[in-house]
Amino acid sequence: MNKKVSILMGSKSDLPIMEKAAEVLKEFNIDYDINVLSAHRTPHETIAHVESSDADVFIAGAGGAAHLPGVIAGISIKPVIGIPINSSNSIKGIDSLLSIVQMPSGVPVASVAIDGAKNAAILAIQMMGISDDTIKDQLIAFKAKQKETVLATNNAVSA
Amino acid sequence: MNKKVSILMGSKSDLPIMEKAAEVLKEFNIDYDINVLSAHRTPHETIAHVESSDADVFIAGAGGAAHLPGVIAGISIKPVIGIPINSSNSIKGIDSLLSIVQMPSGVPVASVAIDGAKNAAILAIQMMGISDDTIKDQLIAFKAKQKETVLATNNAVSA
Amino acid sequence: MNKKVSILMGSKSDLPIMEKAAEVLKEFNIDYDINVLSAHRTPHETIAHVESSDADVFIAGAGGAAHLPGVIAGISIKPVIGIPINSSNSIKGIDSLLSIVQMPSGVPVASVAIDGAKNAAILAIQMMGISDDTIKDQLIAFKAKQKETVLATNNAVSA
Amino acid sequence: MNKKVSILMGSKSDLPIMEKAAEVLKEFNIDYDINVLSAHRTPHETIAHVESSDADVFIAGAGGAAHLPGVIAGISIKPVIGIPINSSNSIKGIDSLLSIVQMPSGVPVASVAIDGAKNAAILAIQMMGISDDTIKDQLIAFKAKQKETVLATNNAVSA
Amino acid sequence: MNKKVSILMGSKSDLPIMEKAAEVLKEFNIDYDINVLSAHRTPHETIAHVESSDADVFIAGAGGAAHLPGVIAGISIKPVIGIPINSSNSIKGIDSLLSIVQMPSGVPVASVAIDGAKNAAILAIQMMGISDDTIKDQLIAFKAKQKETVLATNNAVSA
Amino acid sequence: MNKKVSILMGSKSDLPIMEKAAEVLKEFNIDYDINVLSAHRTPHETIAHVESSDADVFIAGAGGAAHLPGVIAGISIKPVIGIPINSSNSIKGIDSLLSIVQMPSGVPVASVAIDGAKNAAILAIQMMGISDDTIKDQLIAFKAKQKETVLATNNAVSA
Amino acid sequence: MNKKVSILMGSKSDLPIMEKAAEVLKEFNIDYDINVLSAHRTPHETIAHVESSDADVFIAGAGGAAHLPGVIAGISIKPVIGIPINSSNSIKGIDSLLSIVQMPSGVPVASVAIDGAKNAAILAIQMMGISDDTIKDQLIAFKAKQKETVLATNNAVSA
Amino acid sequence: MNKKVSILMGSKSDLPIMEKAAEVLKEFNIDYDINVLSAHRTPHETIAHVESSDADVFIAGAGGAAHLPGVIAGISIKPVIGIPINSSNSIKGIDSLLSIVQMPSGVPVASVAIDGAKNAAILAIQMMGISDDTIKDQLIAFKAKQKETVLATNNAVSA
Repeated sequence: MNKKVSILMGSKSDLPIMEKAAEVLKEFNIDYDINVLSAHRTPHETIAHVESSDADVFIAGAGGAAHLPGVIAGISIKPVIGIPINSSNSIKGIDSLLSIVQMPSGVPVASVAIDGAKNAAILAIQMMGISDDTIKDQLIAFKAKQKETVLATNNAVSA
Repeated sequence: MNKKVSILMGSKSDLPIMEKAAEVLKEFNIDYDINVLSAHRTPHETIAHVESSDADVFIAGAGGAAHLPGVIAGISIKPVIGIPINSSNSIKGIDSLLSIVQMPSGVPVASVAIDGAKNAAILAIQMMGISDDTIKDQLIAFKAKQKETVLATNNAVSA
Repeated sequence: MNKKVSILMGSKSDLPIMEKAAEVLKEFNIDYDINVLSAHRTPHETIAHVESSDADVFIAGAGGAAHLPGVIAGISIKPVIGIPINSSNSIKGIDSLLSIVQMPSGVPVASVAIDGAKNAAILAIQMMGISDDTIKDQLIAFKAKQKETVLATNNAVSA
Repeated sequence: MNKKVSILMGSKSDLPIMEKAAEVLKEFNIDYDINVLSAHRTPHETIAHVESSDADVFIAGAGGAAHLPGVIAGISIKPVIGIPINSSNSIKGIDSLLSIVQMPSGVPVASVAIDGAKNAAILAIQMMGISDDTIKDQLIAFKAKQKETVLATNNAVSA
Repeated sequence: MNKKVSILMGSKSDLPIMEKAAEVLKEFNIDYDINVLSAHRTPHETIAHVESSDADVFIAGAGGAAHLPGVIAGISIKPVIGIPINSSNSIKGIDSLLSIVQMPSGVPVASVAIDGAKNAAILAIQMMGISDDTIKDQLIAFKAKQKETVLATNNAVSA
Repeated sequence: MNKKVSILMGSKSDLPIMEKAAEVLKEFNIDYDINVLSAHRTPHETIAHVESSDADVFIAGAGGAAHLPGVIAGISIKPVIGIPINSSNSIKGIDSLLSIVQMPSGVPVASVAIDGAKNAAILAIQMMGISDDTIKDQLIAFKAKQKETVLATNNAVSA
Repeated sequence: MNKKVSILMGSKSDLPIMEKAAEVLKEFNIDYDINVLSAHRTPHETIAHVESSDADVFIAGAGGAAHLPGVIAGISIKPVIGIPINSSNSIKGIDSLLSIVQMPSGVPVASVAIDGAKNAAILAIQMMGISDDTIKDQLIAFKAKQKETVLATNNAVSA
Repeated sequence: MNKKVSILMGSKSDLPIMEKAAEVLKEFNIDYDINVLSAHRTPHETIAHVESSDADVFIAGAGGAAHLPGVIAGISIKPVIGIPINSSNSIKGIDSLLSIVQMPSGVPVASVAIDGAKNAAILAIQMMGISDDTIKDQLIAFKAKQKETVLATNNAVSA
C-alpha cells in the first residue's frame, strides 16, 4: 500500500510555510493531503480528521501557543511531526517551539526547527523509508545531490 | 443558583500546587470539583467533562507544553483560567507560561503567574462576583484583611 | 443592569492595538468606555477612575514595565484583564508579559497574549456571560461562526 | 526482519537519562544497542558506528552544544531523534534544545522534550510501527493503559 | 539638614535581602526608615508614605511583577532606586528586573542588579554625595578599602 | 556652583539615542559635556576623562558587551547612569542591559530602560535636585506638564 | 613559514558576513583560504579538508544549530574560532551562539560575538602573533589607529 | 623562550572554577601566574598587571556584568580568553556569557562555555602550539587519551 502524509495547520496564514512540506513530498512522489484545522476553533473536526485518516505520518504546524501537534499526538498512535511557526502572534517562534517540543511523558511530538517545513517532510519520508527500499534509494539520491550542491558552491567560492 | 468552579490538572504531580486554588474556593464557600484529566492522555474524557460540566469557570493547570487550558477554551464558551506549572519537565515554568498565554485570536485563556493557583481562584471568584453581591462583599473583606496583614507587618518591621 | 467594560491604556501609542478590544465589545453590544490613563504619569487620576467606575471588568494594556493592570488590580475587587503590548520601548513584548502576569499572591491579573486585545474583550464577555444568558448565546454563535470560517478555509485549501 | 534502534550518548553522565529510552524499548521487545560515542571526542568512531549500523532509527542524547544528533543526521538517511540533555554544563537544557532542533534545511533531527528519553523511544517505536501491525497493536495497548492510569488517578482525586 | 533614605519592600519575605541596604546606610551614618508597603495590597498607604516622606532617595525592592519602584516614581520627583528581587514567585529575578528597569519615558527608575541591595544603598549614598563633601570623603575611603581587600586577596592567591 | 553632567558613549553610532539625554538637560538648563570615548578602544583616555571631570553625574550609553558605564563606576565615586543601547551588534538590547545592570557588589551602576536616554537625563536631574530647590521646582513643573499631556490625550480619546 | 587561516562556512548565505574576516586577513597580509563546507551536508569533505589543511587557525561561521566549529574542533588540535551567524533560520543568533560556545570539556571553541567575523580574524591574528613579532607590530599599529579614530570622532562630537 | 599564561579573576569566589584552568596548564608544563584583580575594584592595578605582563595569553573569568576579559582586551594586543562564571550574582551565567562574548568590532574576546575553565586552558595551549611543536605533540597525545577514555567507557556500557 502507498504511504501517505497528512499535513495540518491551524490557520491559513501558515500556508506559505507549510506548502514547503507539500513540495518536498511531491518531489518524492509521496501521497499527502493538506488541511486547515484548528485545535482551538475546530477541535471536534480536527479529532475526527485524525481518527479517520489513513495517513502514516502527521505533519502539523502552528504558531504561538501551538497546540495542534500535541492534540494530534494525544489522539493517534502514528508519529506526529510539529513545525513551530514564527507567525505574527508569536515571539520569534520561541513560544511555538516550547509549546510543541516540551510534551509530557508518553505522548511524543517530533519537533523540527522553527519554520522548518521542508525538514518536516524529509523526516516524514525518512520514517516511511524504514520499511521501504524505494524511499531509501530516493533519500540516498537526495543526500548525494545535496552534497554536490555544496561542493559546487565551494568550488565557486574557494576558487 | 450556586456558582461553581471546575479545577483540572494534567497530572497528579500538579496536585500540591492546584490544591491551593481549592483551599481559596473553600474559604469563599464556592462550590468546586477537582479532576486529573489530561489533554494528551485522556482527550475524549477531558472534552466530555468540559462539555457536560455545570461549572461557571474552569481553572486548569499544566506544565511544559501546557495544552490543557487551551483545549478547554476550544470546547467551552466559559472563561478558562490557566496556571502555568513549574513542573519537573518544565524550564522554570517559562514554557508552561508561553504555552498557556499565547493563545490565538478568538480563543482566550486568562493566564495567571507561574504556580499562581491561589490567584487563579481569586480571579475566578472575581468573575463570579460580577453579578453576585455576596461574593463582592467577600472580596471587599478579603482585600481589607490583606491590607491589614501588610500594615501589621509594617508596624513590626518599621518600628 | 447593563454590563460594562472599562478599557484603559497607558499611552496613546497603544490605541491601535487597544481599539481591537473596543471593536469586539461593540459587535457584542457591550457598553464600554476607553481611556488613556497612566499608572506612572497620572497615578491619582487612574486610581480615581477605577474607584469611581461602574464597569464590571477592566481591560488594561501597557508596554515595557507594564504596571497599569497591576495597579488597577490593587485598587479594585473587579476582574482585571492585562494586555502585554509590544510597544516601541518593549523587548518583543516579553517584558510587558512578565510585568503583567507575574502578580503576587492575592492580587490576580488575567493576562492574555502579547497584543491580544481581541481576546481580552472576548474574555471579558465570557466573564460577564457567567450570569447572562443573552451573552452566552452570543458567545455560542461567535464560536460557531469561528468554526465555520475555519472549515470554509479548509474546504478551499484541501480541495 | 526485526526492527532495531541504536541509542547513542556523548558522555557516560547522560546514561541515567538515556537508560529510560532503553527501558521503553525493552518493554516493547524492540532490539537496541546502547553506545557512548562523542561527536567531538570520537568523531571517526561515531561516524563508523552510524555508517555500519543496521539500526532503523537513531536516538541520540547530548547536553550543552549538543552536536551528536546533528552529526548522525549528516551521515545517515535514517530518522534521527535528538534528546536535549539538561547536563551539568547546560543552561537548564535550553542550549541543548536549540543545538538539536534548529537544524538547517535538508538535514532534519526530530527533537523531543528536554530529558525526554522515554518519549524518544516511543517516537522511535511509532516510526517503526508505520509498517508493522504488531507494533501498532502494542502502541494501541500502551495508549489505552496510559488512559486508564489517568482515569484511575482522577477517580481517586475527584472522589 | 541630614540626608535620609526611605527603604520600602512589598513583602516581609524580601527583608533578608533589603536589610543589606540598611546595613550599608548604617555604616555610612545615613538616616533611613524601613517599611513593608505593597503597591498592590496597600496602594493608598504606599502613596501616602511617599507623599509625606522627607527622604531624599527611595530604595524599593520587589519580586515578580515588581511594580513598587515604578509606583513610587510615579508619585515622587525624588530619585527612586529599584532592586529586582529573586523571590520565590520570580523566574530567577528576570521578571523582576524587566518590571523595574523598562520604565516609560518621563518616569525613570534606577535599577541595580538582581538582589543588589548593597549596591542600591551605595548608589543612594553617591547621589546624596553630589552636594555633600563628608559623604564624598566616606565614598573615597570606601573605594580605597575595597581596593585594599582585593589586593590583599591577590597577594594571598598569587603567592 | 553649577551642577554638571558628563555624557559618554562608546561609538558615534550611539549618538542619535544619546542626544535625547542632552536635549533634556538643555531644557532644564543643566550644564553638560558630550563625549565619544570607548572602554575598549580608548581605555586610558576614558579613565583620564573620568578622573579629571568636574561633572556631578556620569551618563554612559553602550551596546552589546556594554562595559563603559561599569568602567566609569570603577574609577569614580560619583553616580553613574547606564543606558543599554539596542545597537546593530546587540540582541535587542538584552545583552547591553545585562552587561550594565548586573554589576558586582560595591560598584553600582544605575541602569535605565533599553535606549532610555531621556530617562537617564531626568534621573540625573533628580539626583542633582536632592540639594537644589530650583531643580526640584523644575521637576515638579515637568511632572505636572506630563500629567496634563496625558489628561489632554484622555479627553480627546475618551470623548 | 608563513602563517595561514582557513575560513569555513556552512552555507553560501553566510558569505556576506564571513567575507569581513577575509578582508581583515588581507589587510594584515595573512594567507587564507575560504570554503563553503557543511558539517551536515558534506561531513566527510569537511573532515578531509580539516585533516589535510596546513592552516594554523580555523575560523568557522554557522547559523541555527551551528555545529561546524565544534565538528572542526573534534578533528583538529589547532585553535578553532566560531562565529555565531544570525542567519534567516536563526533566532537572532542566540541559538547559533549557544550551539558554538557551550562545547564540552576537552574540546574548546573560541566564540566571538554574533556576526563578529571581523573580530574572529583579529583574534586569529592575535593567536598567530604569539610567536611572530611582525604580526605583533601590526596589531600595535591597528590598536593605535583604532584609538585615533575614536579620538577624532570625539573631537568632532564634543566640540 | 617559554610560553606563559596569565590567569585573572575578579573575585576570590571564582577561584574553585578558575583553578581548573591552572591544573590543565600544570599538566602541560606551561608556565602561568594566577591573580585576583577586578576590573571595577582595582582598575589601575589590573591595567598595570596587563601592561607589564610577559604572558602570551590572558585567561580571565568573571560573573554577572563580566567586564574583566573585555577590559584586558582593550589594553593588550595578546589573545584574551573569557570564561563566563555562573557566580552567585549571575543569572545561570547567561549575563556573564553575553557580557563577555558580545564585544564590539576591533576588540575580540574568545569566549568559552559557562564555567569552562578547563577548555580555556586547552584553547590557550592550542594558541601557543601554533609555533611550538612540543606543545602540538602534547595536544595530539591529549586528544588520543581523550578518545581512549570514551572508547573504554563505550566498551563498558555497550557490552
